[in-house]
Amino acid sequence: MTVHKLFTKLDSFYSDMVDVRRYLHQHPELSFEEKETPAFIAAFYKNLGVDVRTGVGGNGVVATIVGGKPGKTIALRADFDALPIQDEKEVPYKSTVPNKMHACGHDGHTSTLIHLAKALFEMKDELAGTYVMIHQHAEEYAPGGAKPMIEDGCLDGVDLVFGTHLWAIEPLGKIQYRIGPMMAAADRFEITVQGAGGHGAQPHKTKDAIVVGSQLVSNLQQIVSRRVNPIDSAVVTIGSFVSDNAFNVIADSAKLIGTVRTFNPEVRTQIEEEIERVVKGTCLAADCEYQYDYFRGYPAVVNHAEETNHVIEQAKLVPEVTAIEETEPQMGGEDFAYYLEARKGAFFFTGAQQDHVTKPYPHHHPKFDFNEKAMLIAAKTLGASAINAQNK
Amino acid sequence: MTVHKLFTKLDSFYSDMVDVRRYLHQHPELSFEEKETPAFIAAFYKNLGVDVRTGVGGNGVVATIVGGKPGKTIALRADFDALPIQDEKEVPYKSTVPNKMHACGHDGHTSTLIHLAKALFEMKDELAGTYVMIHQHAEEYAPGGAKPMIEDGCLDGVDLVFGTHLWAIEPLGKIQYRIGPMMAAADRFEITVQGAGGHGAQPHKTKDAIVVGSQLVSNLQQIVSRRVNPIDSAVVTIGSFVSDNAFNVIADSAKLIGTVRTFNPEVRTQIEEEIERVVKGTCLAADCEYQYDYFRGYPAVVNHAEETNHVIEQAKLVPEVTAIEETEPQMGGEDFAYYLEARKGAFFFTGAQQDHVTKPYPHHHPKFDFNEKAMLIAAKTLGASAINAQNK
Amino acid sequence: MTVHKLFTKLDSFYSDMVDVRRYLHQHPELSFEEKETPAFIAAFYKNLGVDVRTGVGGNGVVATIVGGKPGKTIALRADFDALPIQDEKEVPYKSTVPNKMHACGHDGHTSTLIHLAKALFEMKDELAGTYVMIHQHAEEYAPGGAKPMIEDGCLDGVDLVFGTHLWAIEPLGKIQYRIGPMMAAADRFEITVQGAGGHGAQPHKTKDAIVVGSQLVSNLQQIVSRRVNPIDSAVVTIGSFVSDNAFNVIADSAKLIGTVRTFNPEVRTQIEEEIERVVKGTCLAADCEYQYDYFRGYPAVVNHAEETNHVIEQAKLVPEVTAIEETEPQMGGEDFAYYLEARKGAFFFTGAQQDHVTKPYPHHHPKFDFNEKAMLIAAKTLGASAINAQNK
Amino acid sequence: MTVHKLFTKLDSFYSDMVDVRRYLHQHPELSFEEKETPAFIAAFYKNLGVDVRTGVGGNGVVATIVGGKPGKTIALRADFDALPIQDEKEVPYKSTVPNKMHACGHDGHTSTLIHLAKALFEMKDELAGTYVMIHQHAEEYAPGGAKPMIEDGCLDGVDLVFGTHLWAIEPLGKIQYRIGPMMAAADRFEITVQGAGGHGAQPHKTKDAIVVGSQLVSNLQQIVSRRVNPIDSAVVTIGSFVSDNAFNVIADSAKLIGTVRTFNPEVRTQIEEEIERVVKGTCLAADCEYQYDYFRGYPAVVNHAEETNHVIEQAKLVPEVTAIEETEPQMGGEDFAYYLEARKGAFFFTGAQQDHVTKPYPHHHPKFDFNEKAMLIAAKTLGASAINAQNK
Repeated sequence: MTVHKLFTKLDSFYSDMVDVRRYLHQHPELSFEEKETPAFIAAFYKNLGVDVRTGVGGNGVVATIVGGKPGKTIALRADFDALPIQDEKEVPYKSTVPNKMHACGHDGHTSTLIHLAKALFEMKDELAGTYVMIHQHAEEYAPGGAKPMIEDGCLDGVDLVFGTHLWAIEPLGKIQYRIGPMMAAADRFEITVQGAGGHGAQPHKTKDAIVVGSQLVSNLQQIVSRRVNPIDSAVVTIGSFVSDNAFNVIADSAKLIGTVRTFNPEVRTQIEEEIERVVKGTCLAADCEYQYDYFRGYPAVVNHAEETNHVIEQAKLVPEVTAIEETEPQMGGEDFAYYLEARKGAFFFTGAQQDHVTKPYPHHHPKFDFNEKAMLIAAKTLGASAINAQNK
Repeated sequence: MTVHKLFTKLDSFYSDMVDVRRYLHQHPELSFEEKETPAFIAAFYKNLGVDVRTGVGGNGVVATIVGGKPGKTIALRADFDALPIQDEKEVPYKSTVPNKMHACGHDGHTSTLIHLAKALFEMKDELAGTYVMIHQHAEEYAPGGAKPMIEDGCLDGVDLVFGTHLWAIEPLGKIQYRIGPMMAAADRFEITVQGAGGHGAQPHKTKDAIVVGSQLVSNLQQIVSRRVNPIDSAVVTIGSFVSDNAFNVIADSAKLIGTVRTFNPEVRTQIEEEIERVVKGTCLAADCEYQYDYFRGYPAVVNHAEETNHVIEQAKLVPEVTAIEETEPQMGGEDFAYYLEARKGAFFFTGAQQDHVTKPYPHHHPKFDFNEKAMLIAAKTLGASAINAQNK
Repeated sequence: MTVHKLFTKLDSFYSDMVDVRRYLHQHPELSFEEKETPAFIAAFYKNLGVDVRTGVGGNGVVATIVGGKPGKTIALRADFDALPIQDEKEVPYKSTVPNKMHACGHDGHTSTLIHLAKALFEMKDELAGTYVMIHQHAEEYAPGGAKPMIEDGCLDGVDLVFGTHLWAIEPLGKIQYRIGPMMAAADRFEITVQGAGGHGAQPHKTKDAIVVGSQLVSNLQQIVSRRVNPIDSAVVTIGSFVSDNAFNVIADSAKLIGTVRTFNPEVRTQIEEEIERVVKGTCLAADCEYQYDYFRGYPAVVNHAEETNHVIEQAKLVPEVTAIEETEPQMGGEDFAYYLEARKGAFFFTGAQQDHVTKPYPHHHPKFDFNEKAMLIAAKTLGASAINAQNK
Repeated sequence: MTVHKLFTKLDSFYSDMVDVRRYLHQHPELSFEEKETPAFIAAFYKNLGVDVRTGVGGNGVVATIVGGKPGKTIALRADFDALPIQDEKEVPYKSTVPNKMHACGHDGHTSTLIHLAKALFEMKDELAGTYVMIHQHAEEYAPGGAKPMIEDGCLDGVDLVFGTHLWAIEPLGKIQYRIGPMMAAADRFEITVQGAGGHGAQPHKTKDAIVVGSQLVSNLQQIVSRRVNPIDSAVVTIGSFVSDNAFNVIADSAKLIGTVRTFNPEVRTQIEEEIERVVKGTCLAADCEYQYDYFRGYPAVVNHAEETNHVIEQAKLVPEVTAIEETEPQMGGEDFAYYLEARKGAFFFTGAQQDHVTKPYPHHHPKFDFNEKAMLIAAKTLGASAINAQNK
C-alpha cells in the first residue's frame, strides 16, 4: 500500500529532517525579511529536480510535483519565518543571530514539508494527482504572507489544502483537530479621545480625556457581556491606555489600543461596529472628539468538516499517533485562514512536547523548543492526507 | 424713638400672637387648597380697618398700611400653607386635621406678620412711607404662590421687600443672614431609558435598559465633579431608579427621577443642558431611545448686599437678639426667590429652637415645633427693617 | 425486526395519542399541584396491567415493564405539569381552566410515553431488559420534580435514561441533538445594597444606594467580559433594579435581581463567587452594606457522547425523520439535567412545528401549540433508542 | 502723617525698584537652588546697615528693622525663586539663563520688599515696633521654603504677617482680598493598580489592570459629587493614566497620578481617606492589589478676618488703588498658608496687568510679564498695613 511505502521513506529521512531543522534553527529570519531561508528551500528542490517557483507573493516558494496518474491537486503548506526574540536555550543548535529565534516551530514545519516532498517526488510515478508544496513567508506578522501568495497564484488549480502546526504544549503522538472554527480572527483597534486639557484645578474649563477614556473602557466591556450572542466566543481587550501628563494637569487626550478576537465573521463585523457606536456615544456625552481605527488581522481558521474527518482517518494510519482528539477553539490567530477561505481543507495540531518535560515552555517563549520526532508524525499525517485524498 | 415704641407694642401683643399661631396650627390647609386661612387673615385686617385685597394670584392676601408721611413702600412677606404630614406632637394645639400639619412654621410667620401690621397700623400717623403685608399661599409646592401674586401686582409700587423664616434648628436669639445666594434653586428631572426587552438568557437580542440606566447614573456624577466650576455649589441626585421586572428578563425600560440644586443661574442652565448631553450620548452608545424632562422649581434666594446689611443693623436694635451670624448657603428651596428677583431686599432666618431641647426635630418632621418667642424677635427685626428703611 | 413491529403498533395508536393529549390539554395542572394528571396516568397503566408506583418524590408516577429476556434497564422520562398562562388559542381542545395552560407541550410528552409504554408492554415477551417509564411532575418550577423522584428511587437499577422535548419552533421531521452541554444551568441571585438615605440636597450626609447599585451593574458586566473563559458561554443579567423613592431624596437602599446561565459547572461556581467579590468590593468602596443571595436552579443538561450517537443512529430508522442535526446550546434550563448527572443517557429535541405555520409561537406563549404528528416521531425515536440499547 | 512720608519715599525709589527687578529677572534661580539671589538680597541689606540673617531654613534671608518706639512685630514676606521655563518674551531684561525664568513675578516681590524695607529703615526712629522682612526661597516647589524658614525661627516674636502676590491677570490699581480660604490646599496622589497580565485573548487567566484603573477613575468622581459637602469646594483630578503595552496583551499594572484641591482641612483629610477606600474596594472587587500614596502639598491660604479688613482699610489710603474687591477662592496653592497657620495675618493680590494689554499671558506662561508700577502699589499697601497695624 502506497501510504506504508511513504511512511518507510519518511522514516529513512528522519535524520536529515533533524539536520535541516537544526540548520534553519541556527539561521532564523524575521517576517518579510526572509532571504536565505527561501533560497535554501528553493535549492533543496532544485537539487532534487523538482519544479520550483520563488518570490511568490513576496518571499514565498512553491514547488510542484506531478504524479504519474491523473487526479486532484493537493496543496500542503509550511511557514518559515522566525520571531524577534533572543534565544535563551542552551543547545548546540541554538540561534546564531542575536534577537532572532525560531520560537514557534516554523523551522520544523519547513523541514517536515521538504522531506515529505522528497518522498512524494521519489514515488511520483505511482501517485495520482498533483502535489503543491507551499512554503510561506511571514506568518507571524499581519498582514502575513498567505494572502499575497494566494493572490500570486499559489492555489491556482488546487482542489484541497492541508496544513499542521507542531504543538509543543501537547504530548507527542497526539493529533488535535476541530471541525469549524479552530483559531480566532485577531484584529486591532485604536481609539484616541480628544478632550480639552487644562489646569488640574479647573475641570470646568476642560474636557477630561482620562475620564472619558475610562468610561470607554467600562462601556466596551458590555459588548461581550450584552451585545454578542453568548454562544459565540469573543474577546475585546484594551491592551494599552496612555495619557501621560503632569499630576496637576487635566488630560487633553487619551489613547487606547486593543484587540478583538472572534470566530464568527458576523460577530467580528458586529463588534467593529459596536465599538464605534460606544466610542461615538461616550464621546458625545462628554462633548469630546475621537479618532477610531479598526485594523483587520487574519480571519478565523475555519476547518471544513469532510476534510477534517479525512485527516482524522489518515492520522489513524500513522503508527506513532496514539491519540486523536478535538481541541477547544484557540483565541490566537493564523493566516492559514486565507487558504481555507479559498479552498476546502483542514488545519490540525501535531503534538510535539519534549520527552521528560512536564511543563513545556509555550510558543514564543525565549526557551521554546519542540520534540523533533513530531516532524515525522506531521509528515506522515500530512502525506497520508494528501495521497489518500485522491480516493475520496 | 419710633422703633422702641414699635417694640413695646409688639411686646404687648405677644400673648395674642401665641393664640393666633395656635389657632392656625390646629387648622392647617395644604398648598393651593387654602380657604379658611386667607379668610381668617382678611377678617383680621378688616376688623382693624386696614385696606385688604384677597384672592391675589390665587389664594393670597395683601394688606396695605399708608403712613402719615411720604416715603418708600416696603413689603413684608409671610407664607401660610401647611404640609401633608400627620401631626405626631402631643400638645394642646396639635393639628385637628388628619394628615395635615403646620410642620414648617408658616403659622408662626402669619401670626407674626398680622400682629406686626397691627402695631404699624396703630402707629401709622407717625410713620413715613407705605407698608405692604404680603400673605402668601402655597410656598411648599412648586410652582408656588409667590410668582402668581407678583404677576397679580403684589409688588406694584414696592421699593424693598423683606422676609424671614423661623428656624427651629438654630438657638433662640440668633439671626442668620447671607449676602448673595442663601437658598438653592431646586429643580426636578425625569429620564426614561427605552431599550428593548427580552429573555434574560439572550442579551444579544435586547438592549438592556438597566445597564444603560446604570451607566447614566455613573456618568451623571461627572457633571458635578468635572463640568461645574468647583467654586460653585451644585448637587445632581438621582433619587429614584425603577426597572421592576422578573429576574430572568432583560429590562425594556428604566426610569430615573432626580433633583438638581444650584445657586448660580448659569450653572443651573449648564446642568440642565449637560444632563441632556450625557443622556443623549449614553443612550446613543447603547442604541437606546430616551425621554428627558427637566422641570424648574424655585430659583435661588439671592439676597442683596445693602438690604442684608440693613437687616443686620436693625437686628442689633432688638433686645432679644443675642447673635447675628452668617449662615452657609442652604441647598433647600424657597419661593421668596421671586420677590428678590423683582425687587431689592433680604431674607433671613430667625432662630426658634425650643427651650430645653438639645436636638430639635427638623422642619417637615411629624414632631416639628418651634419656640413661639421667636415670633416676637421676627416681628421686631422685620418691623425695624421696614421702618428704618425710610432713612436709608 | 422488533423495531418495525414497534413502529407499526405506534402508528395504530396515533389516534389515541391525539385524544389523550387533547384531554390533558383541556385539564392542565400547575407544578407541584398535579393531582388529576398523575391519577389519569396511573389509571392508564393499571388498565393495561402494568406495574405502577404513584406519589414518587411528590406527584411523580413510575411504571415498569419487564421484558421476557434478561437485559439492561432503560428509563424514559416525560414531564406532565402545565403553566400559569391563560390559553388564548381558539381550538376545540383549548384549556378549560382559567389561567392554566399546557404551553410547553408536556401534555404531548405524556401521551407519547404512555402509548409507547403500551406498545412495549404488548411486545414484552419478545423484549430483552426492563423499561422504566418516568412520568415527572413539576419540571417548570425550580427546584423541580426530577431531583425528589431520583431521591425516591426512580433511577434505582436503571442503566440508561432517554428523554425528548417536542420542539414547536423546529420543523416536523427534524431531530436535534448535541453531545455535551445542550441546555444551560439557570440560577437566580438577589443583591440588596444598603446605603444611608437622606435629603437629595445633602449627599455628604448619605451613602447613595442608587449610585452604588449602578456601579454594581457596570462592574458585573466584567465577569462575562473579563473573568470567564471566552470559550465558555455564560450570561449574567440583572433583570430588575428597584429603588423607588421621591425625586428629592437620596436612596437608602437598592435591590437588584438577576439570573446566571452557564453550561460548565466550574464556570457556574466561579460566577457565583465572582459576583460576591464584585458586590463586596463595590460596596466597600462606597462604605455600604449588602445582602447577597444566590439560588441554584437546574444544572446544565449535559448529554453523554455514546448515548447521543446511539439516539442519532436510531432516529435514522424512523421513517418520518427527515433531518438529524446538531443544535446550538440553549441558554434555557431543564431538570432532565439531574437524570444525566446520575446516569448515562441523552436528551433530544423532536421538531414539532405546525403545518402551514411559518412563524410559530414560542414555547410559553399564550397561543402556543404543536404538531401532534411529532408525538409519533418522538415515540418511535425513544422506543427504538430503548429497545436497541440492549444490543449496544 | 507717617504713611504719607512712607509713600513719598517709595515714590522716590521707584526707578531703583524697576532696576533691581530687571536685574533679578535676568538672573533667575530655581527653587532650592537659589544662591546668587539670596546673596544679592543680603548684600542690599548689609549695604544699608540692616541686620540680616542668611541661610534661614535653607536659602532664606531675614532682615529685621527695629523702630524707635516699642510696639508689635510685623512680618512681611516676599518669595524669590524662579521657574524651569524658557523665557520667550522679547524685552531687554529677558532672562539670560536658558530654561529658567521669573514667570510668576517673584522678582517683583523681592524688589518691592527690599525697597519698602529701605524706606522703613530710613524712618525707623519715628516708627513703633519691629519689622521683619522674610525673603523666602522655593515657593514654587513643594514642600517649599516657608515651612523650614518658620521652623528656623523666622516668625519668632512676630505678631502679624502680611504678604501679597502681584497679579498680572487683574488690572493695575486693583487690590483683591478674601476673608477665609483664598487659595486651595494642593496635594498629589499616586495609585498603582497591580493586576495580572497575560495574552490579550485570554482574559480569564489575567486580572485586567486597565479595566480596574478605568473603574477607579469613574468611581473617584463620586467623591466630589456624593461625598463632599456641596458647600465646600473640592477638586479630584487624575492627570495621568499610563498602562503602556502591546495591543494584544492584557495589562499587568496601571499607574494613575492626580491632584486634590481643597479649602477646608476636614474635607482635605476626608478626601485623602475616601480615595483610599475607593481604591481598596475597587481593587478588591477585581481581586487586584494596589499601592496608594498621598503627598500633602501646601495647605489652604486662609486669611484672618480682622487682618484682612485692616489691609482693606490701608489700601484705601494708597492713591494708586482704584478698586478693592473680593476675589473668588483660587484653586491654586501658595505656601504663604504656613505663615497664616502660625500667625494672624492676611495675603492679598495686587493687580499688575500691563498697560495696553487686554488679554494678559497667565502666570507660568513663557511670555508672562507684569506691570512694574504694581510694585509701588504693593509696597505702599504692605507698608501702610505694617505701620498702621501698630495702632490697631
